[in-house]
Amino acid sequence: MPIVQSRTRDAIPASLVTPDRLARWRGGVRDRAEAAVVSYVRDRCEEHVRAVPGAGLVTELLTSSVSGGKYVRSTFAYLGWRCGAGDDSSGDDAALRAAAAIELLHAFALIQDDVMDQSAMRRGRTAVHVRLADWYAAQHLARDPARFGESAAILLSDLCLVWSERMLRDCGLPPAALERAWPVWDTLRGELAVGQFADLVYDARQLPPMEAVLEMSRRKSGNYTVRRPLELGAALAGCDPDVREALGRYGALVGEAFQLRDDLLGVFGQPSVTGKPNGGDLREHKATSVITLAAELAGPARREELTRLYGRDRLTEPDLARLRALIEATGAPDRVEQMIGSRVSAAVAVLPGGGLDDFALAALRELAVRATARIR
Amino acid sequence: MPIVQSRTRDAIPASLVTPDRLARWRGGVRDRAEAAVVSYVRDRCEEHVRAVPGAGLVTELLTSSVSGGKYVRSTFAYLGWRCGAGDDSSGDDAALRAAAAIELLHAFALIQDDVMDQSAMRRGRTAVHVRLADWYAAQHLARDPARFGESAAILLSDLCLVWSERMLRDCGLPPAALERAWPVWDTLRGELAVGQFADLVYDARQLPPMEAVLEMSRRKSGNYTVRRPLELGAALAGCDPDVREALGRYGALVGEAFQLRDDLLGVFGQPSVTGKPNGGDLREHKATSVITLAAELAGPARREELTRLYGRDRLTEPDLARLRALIEATGAPDRVEQMIGSRVSAAVAVLPGGGLDDFALAALRELAVRATARIR
Repeated sequence: MPIVQSRTRDAIPASLVTPDRLARWRGGVRDRAEAAVVSYVRDRCEEHVRAVPGAGLVTELLTSSVSGGKYVRSTFAYLGWRCGAGDDSSGDDAALRAAAAIELLHAFALIQDDVMDQSAMRRGRTAVHVRLADWYAAQHLARDPARFGESAAILLSDLCLVWSERMLRDCGLPPAALERAWPVWDTLRGELAVGQFADLVYDARQLPPMEAVLEMSRRKSGNYTVRRPLELGAALAGCDPDVREALGRYGALVGEAFQLRDDLLGVFGQPSVTGKPNGGDLREHKATSVITLAAELAGPARREELTRLYGRDRLTEPDLARLRALIEATGAPDRVEQMIGSRVSAAVAVLPGGGLDDFALAALRELAVRATARIR
Repeated sequence: MPIVQSRTRDAIPASLVTPDRLARWRGGVRDRAEAAVVSYVRDRCEEHVRAVPGAGLVTELLTSSVSGGKYVRSTFAYLGWRCGAGDDSSGDDAALRAAAAIELLHAFALIQDDVMDQSAMRRGRTAVHVRLADWYAAQHLARDPARFGESAAILLSDLCLVWSERMLRDCGLPPAALERAWPVWDTLRGELAVGQFADLVYDARQLPPMEAVLEMSRRKSGNYTVRRPLELGAALAGCDPDVREALGRYGALVGEAFQLRDDLLGVFGQPSVTGKPNGGDLREHKATSVITLAAELAGPARREELTRLYGRDRLTEPDLARLRALIEATGAPDRVEQMIGSRVSAAVAVLPGGGLDDFALAALRELAVRATARIR
């Protein structure tokens, strides 16, 4: 049973749902979610980390790991809640905390990812494991600083993982709402870890088929970024089954488009936009859609050059430029751009005419485009 | 409010609580807990892991990670429950599943530990990260197998961490029982990660003071192995506050003794008993009680030799033998042996006369000795 029915009464009329209003709403959700999760992390550090050597650094790293992101996942989760709860629900702050808990899960994933990929940068800042290694080296302690940094970063990511569930459990929504949400949460976390595992096994130097790549990115990133957060919010609000189902289909499509955009940015994105080093996916030999598709579309000569360059352990700047030109020449980026467009259109078409108020509908339409746009 | 009061009615009279009966009880708890957690892990693998490359190996590694251990933690948790619930409670199977969930948390800790310490063996078997590296190498995939093995093992440990909480949440006890247990669970997991972090920072080559070592092992291992599991079970059963408090004090003392025994085994234990390589703590330069105490008790000449040998990156078999002889000669092992004995006596003395039935009392007394005995 929905705890708060979606209402047309008191709803904002379609004519008042302006782009400005949507932008203010988005900014407000983001800032409130960030404030909630940062203060939660500070409290947890106060509770657990205080007496540990390096407590100040640990607290700084954990709070900054949940700060400054785009908050895409919590925005989708909160929007899922908004789809069922209307615009003046009493559980609003609690729902926002529940949505913000996903950012702690995301911090866990990013810290671990950077260790596994040995990436030194994240969101334009030095990665957590590198900061920890530097701190260790400055103390003249006895072990290998890089090794210490990686192990310590994994432990900080564990804290984020554990606290994310605790923040959701303690969000303040009634037990019945949480009961509905746990299955989605469990699916989300399972998919994340298993998708990450598949990501490690696949490697672009032994290109898997395009269908396998899409399936993997659907499970790992698309579901994780859009679909499950939206479903989590909808489950918390007790949305009707048909609304939940439509949101799930919308989320799957937008999530795939989001991941395809990420794949384009991983090859062509500027560090100033991505916050990560130039050509990250190429350097890390990721088997993404763009790269796999380029290999499929290339003629024999280009494919040979592509594979040979890709096989190099360390790619120089000229290698990267040549790889980009080769990929561009296969037409793969245009094809991926079309795939993004068709998914966004399909997602918007899937949204139900009834069961959602005008504001929720407008926000879903706008987010489908924004979350997958060329520059985010 | 306790959900099931401890009763004298139907309780087993003291005269019937024989060592044989206790041993059968212990064996039964262990085997039931193992069966519960292995079947839970199998179901989760079926749910999440099926479609992933290497699914068979992942399932095998995850199930074997929760098999074959001593199940100390779940036994203490179940005993905590038994302290409040008497011997014929209806929630018995559910409580056993809750207790067994701790073994999944423990599997998480062990898999991560072995990656961080680069230990190749666990419970006499090849460690998870090494198995994964071997599998990867055999597929002739593109990355460094050792690096793959470590990253993949961390992801498997994540699954164990996530599933441990889920197994507890889904154990089947009523929501009110779980509400009482979450604070203990959150404390336990926080202490584990933070203790592990402190363990990384401390290093025996820069010996911290004995008090700091004891404090760390209290938080990381003692609380984690005995005190919090016991408190978790007692919270689930709704034990009276004074019983919970007494169990907490008992658990802290037995936990410390357990860790001191582990420290002795880490220097002097045989691989056939520990399931780990000979002299593990020495090889890993751990700052344990035995080693720290030996350095404190040694005269200048012995301390100089101890520190010099310890400073070596790789210890040979003759180095290990010499280190053992030096430690032995300081009298530190005898002193630690006395510390174990006095903690076990104090723990038994702390147990309340009232509020526990004869079986629970006898089991607590026996476990205090058994869990900390020379050969476990």
